[in-house]
Amino acid sequence: MSIEKLDEAGVLAEIQSVAGWKVIYGGKLLRLFHFRSFAEALGFMVTVGVEADKMNHHPEMRNVYTMVEFILTTHDAGGLTALDFELARKIQSLAGNAIEKKED
Amino acid sequence: MSIEKLDEAGVLAEIQSVAGWKVIYGGKLLRLFHFRSFAEALGFMVTVGVEADKMNHHPEMRNVYTMVEFILTTHDAGGLTALDFELARKIQSLAGNAIEKKED
Amino acid sequence: MSIEKLDEAGVLAEIQSVAGWKVIYGGKLLRLFHFRSFAEALGFMVTVGVEADKMNHHPEMRNVYTMVEFILTTHDAGGLTALDFELARKIQSLAGNAIEKKED
Amino acid sequence: MSIEKLDEAGVLAEIQSVAGWKVIYGGKLLRLFHFRSFAEALGFMVTVGVEADKMNHHPEMRNVYTMVEFILTTHDAGGLTALDFELARKIQSLAGNAIEKKED
Repeated sequence: MSIEKLDEAGVLAEIQSVAGWKVIYGGKLLRLFHFRSFAEALGFMVTVGVEADKMNHHPEMRNVYTMVEFILTTHDAGGLTALDFELARKIQSLAGNAIEKKED
Repeated sequence: MSIEKLDEAGVLAEIQSVAGWKVIYGGKLLRLFHFRSFAEALGFMVTVGVEADKMNHHPEMRNVYTMVEFILTTHDAGGLTALDFELARKIQSLAGNAIEKKED
Repeated sequence: MSIEKLDEAGVLAEIQSVAGWKVIYGGKLLRLFHFRSFAEALGFMVTVGVEADKMNHHPEMRNVYTMVEFILTTHDAGGLTALDFELARKIQSLAGNAIEKKED
Repeated sequence: MSIEKLDEAGVLAEIQSVAGWKVIYGGKLLRLFHFRSFAEALGFMVTVGVEADKMNHHPEMRNVYTMVEFILTTHDAGGLTALDFELARKIQSLAGNAIEKKED
């Protein structure tokens, strides 16, 4: 099964469902999360990693101390697809321990 | 520095601070946690593991699907010490994603 | 799809393929692994956990400091099935960092 | 204790001890590792994460599927210090499951 790249209207419709995520240059979804400790940040990456591997759709994950950043895209489609928004919603549902930071 | 085994009064005083933990046979502290998914259970073990390794005080951890069980004791002291309660309180503070189950 | 419990001959045939694993009481497969550090033991549990969740077949995992123990069985079949041996072989293939200990 | 930024000679001396690492712009150490699976890449990040948190010296970690990239620097010193090379050597010693890739 191939998955289709969303057009602009499709992206605009989907982006409503994932608070805090931004569409960045090149057709990618980005969000940062902050935690109280490195231990919680690492645990979160593991939880997301397990779910992503089961979807066979892997995020780019970047970690600096208590911060975790995800960048999502579908390489095979050359941009954003329904899969990226599905993963973003999954990540949202797992981020219960994240804390708010003003600057993001 | 050696750490001393708590006497019965010491254990009774400390156990008040850690809801849901039980003292079991042989001078050990036990608690089970349940999660919505295996992914969250594994992430929790990682978070606790990072903190425990930094304290250089390691719990016995047992995982069956969405369940994680901890058994704490201080081998060098032959029973429960202040370290075990410190780790139990730390684990409590990290268990924000755990869910309630009647039977435990 | 239901998966069938292996009979004694089936278990004997499969057990050849997984060095170091034992069949224990109640139709379960058991093996211990030892690592140089807690950090490596925890990383190994994460690696195995990701693969197990993708197979939707979860081991019982027990960790005490640098030791990780797996107990495998198929609850729905009431004993050992091909799935357990598939997971045991997968775990073997991932244990490159484990060290030998005489007593096991 | 404050830790001092290494001068050019100091960096050149230390870099000999860590095969495959490069000094990049801005006084940072970088290395990529590749694994056979996402599961192994994630387990490796956990193992390194536990050790780094115990040193209280955290790498920037980036993961894309089977690749893990580390970027090391000491923010408080404004460049590379002995701590960064200590962490790089630790990471090397834990990378037993990594595989070789030509292009790096």
